[in-house]
Amino acid sequence: MLITLTSDFGLHDSFVGIMKGVIFSINPQATVVDLTHGVPPQDIMAGALTVRHASTYFPRGTIHVVVVDPGVGSGRRPLLIECDGSYFIGPDNGVLSLAIGDRKPAHIVALSNPTYHLQPTSATFHGRDIFAPAAAHLSLGVPPVELGGKLETFMRLALSKAVLKPNEIIGEIIYIDHFGNLYTNIEQHDLRAIAAAKHDIVFGAVHITGIADHYAGGGTDNFVAVVNSWGLVEIAVYRGNAEQVSGAKIGDAVRVKGRVFGG
Amino acid sequence: MLITLTSDFGLHDSFVGIMKGVIFSINPQATVVDLTHGVPPQDIMAGALTVRHASTYFPRGTIHVVVVDPGVGSGRRPLLIECDGSYFIGPDNGVLSLAIGDRKPAHIVALSNPTYHLQPTSATFHGRDIFAPAAAHLSLGVPPVELGGKLETFMRLALSKAVLKPNEIIGEIIYIDHFGNLYTNIEQHDLRAIAAAKHDIVFGAVHITGIADHYAGGGTDNFVAVVNSWGLVEIAVYRGNAEQVSGAKIGDAVRVKGRVFGG
Amino acid sequence: MLITLTSDFGLHDSFVGIMKGVIFSINPQATVVDLTHGVPPQDIMAGALTVRHASTYFPRGTIHVVVVDPGVGSGRRPLLIECDGSYFIGPDNGVLSLAIGDRKPAHIVALSNPTYHLQPTSATFHGRDIFAPAAAHLSLGVPPVELGGKLETFMRLALSKAVLKPNEIIGEIIYIDHFGNLYTNIEQHDLRAIAAAKHDIVFGAVHITGIADHYAGGGTDNFVAVVNSWGLVEIAVYRGNAEQVSGAKIGDAVRVKGRVFGG
Repeated sequence: MLITLTSDFGLHDSFVGIMKGVIFSINPQATVVDLTHGVPPQDIMAGALTVRHASTYFPRGTIHVVVVDPGVGSGRRPLLIECDGSYFIGPDNGVLSLAIGDRKPAHIVALSNPTYHLQPTSATFHGRDIFAPAAAHLSLGVPPVELGGKLETFMRLALSKAVLKPNEIIGEIIYIDHFGNLYTNIEQHDLRAIAAAKHDIVFGAVHITGIADHYAGGGTDNFVAVVNSWGLVEIAVYRGNAEQVSGAKIGDAVRVKGRVFGG
Repeated sequence: MLITLTSDFGLHDSFVGIMKGVIFSINPQATVVDLTHGVPPQDIMAGALTVRHASTYFPRGTIHVVVVDPGVGSGRRPLLIECDGSYFIGPDNGVLSLAIGDRKPAHIVALSNPTYHLQPTSATFHGRDIFAPAAAHLSLGVPPVELGGKLETFMRLALSKAVLKPNEIIGEIIYIDHFGNLYTNIEQHDLRAIAAAKHDIVFGAVHITGIADHYAGGGTDNFVAVVNSWGLVEIAVYRGNAEQVSGAKIGDAVRVKGRVFGG
Repeated sequence: MLITLTSDFGLHDSFVGIMKGVIFSINPQATVVDLTHGVPPQDIMAGALTVRHASTYFPRGTIHVVVVDPGVGSGRRPLLIECDGSYFIGPDNGVLSLAIGDRKPAHIVALSNPTYHLQPTSATFHGRDIFAPAAAHLSLGVPPVELGGKLETFMRLALSKAVLKPNEIIGEIIYIDHFGNLYTNIEQHDLRAIAAAKHDIVFGAVHITGIADHYAGGGTDNFVAVVNSWGLVEIAVYRGNAEQVSGAKIGDAVRVKGRVFGG
């Protein structure tokens, strides 16, 4: 059974290696895949976006463990959600919510059964003591409801949606990747709201003409807008770093306008 | 059989990938887990602390390979230590010693048998040419004593212990993690040396009242002291970075005092 | 079957995790090894050097996927090369060429068969949509020629060779690793061109006497030249960082001269 791990632990320390030790101690046959441990520290939204997108490329039945958990040890509940045959494990702080979206979970469970916790259970590393053991036991066939008490709801993050006007879409930057590419919350199908055949993309002082088919469409060192691998409008610099060149940051506004004349 | 890898190689280059190629060439059935390759370059103490702690979460029989090896190719011996049914492989520079601690090894072996070295053997990358092959052959059932000559001793690191006084514990920072959390050498059971019900933690100009149950106990941007996942007193900043805020570094003194009045 | 992954994706995002999800969705039994994802962004030469060297430590039959691909989505072809029983998959921009070298490939195939692409196929992430599926299907036994049309040639990078003069070798720095060690294009056998028993190594204002057997041969904080694990002359600083100390960069000249007197 596949288990994926996502966290803000980085790879400087042995947090991730220890979680794998716990998993393999319980289920030596597990296959464990790192989605990323480069989520910015305590950035629940970035973790939630990562898992929402990446989990769609894994087979049904995969167990996704997500540990971005600034409230570890405080009141927030440890959570397991089963949805469409796959599993999501992590703190109940919203980090699992974007992956579930509008779907109806089959089970929502608080991981409250101490039988499946590592003992003693620390107040600072539930990834090791609660989430990794839950994933490993689940991968061995333990039913979700064995792991704790049933819940009716879980915490949900509000993801700002792009505003669609007659001839303008107003979005914002929601994620910046390793290449400095700027991901907006403007989805490919949002673009249909604009009747014009050509688009202008405007953010800060930058003005981009048209959505290109690929990065090389912009020419070296020029800004280029593409629909990226998440299905979102993205602003990049071909063979460059759009974040560094523009100074843009999460939350900055990006506008798409229809072009009436010229082009 | 599980093989873990720990090093200061980072992930910028292919050193770690090459070690895995060597292992899978010898034993295609091995399961290889990275503890971390983010040990600061040539920091033998950080490597030793990492393996001491992380190895306890792996099942008996695991083979731990540790390559923090500034003296590679010089006189220092390549080493295999078997202890309580698990195995530790690395240079004889102390990096394995904290994981062994006071336990009595079943075997201490110099990896001197060239039959189990990659040929030609470089003077700069024993991780590839000596340590990875030893781990892979061991995982196939080759007995430790086949891999080289028996030794009586190995190099041990001195880990400073906290000083316990009647109403004060004097420790120091021994490790700083990815979040900027400051790990001291003050262990949870050291705290019992102080009769007072409440503690004050003092380092530099920072004064923390009490040991909290969890990070969120400190409030955003405040320093907080907790007993961390290594069982050590740790100084953190909730949703912040204690290293950056305080400017603290490895070796800085940290004092815990009993509080007589108030609190 | 072993599949290795090399890229400039870094580990900040989930690009690499997603490629593994695609692979395991097609072949749950695959073993996937990361060579490195720390290739500098869009540095085709660094990626090509990495795979040339690292692939030699993997068993025959291994599938090496290399994604350093600034031209993704533009005209460049997605490529599969079979050579001496192993496989190389990536964009036709030269990144595979150094691993093939002078050997004659058994097959050169453009990955043009959409049956083996993820649908819909993005223009920005062929690692996910074309290269990972090709590797996974190949690992299941799909013949190379099933994956697309046969080609006669592929793009080759020109790797500058050291110039051998009667008493001097003129090379340059071609790679800098995580430790700041400077790799030159001067190979071990090039040194035989110099009749003198001792060598002087000169670059910028730095003058190194002799090629040492190992890093510790230089003494702390001194420059030292060694033949490194790639079989190349390398300039390092024992327990230090030669890149930072010297300010050297890729392309800087390095000269090896024979020493006639003294030493």
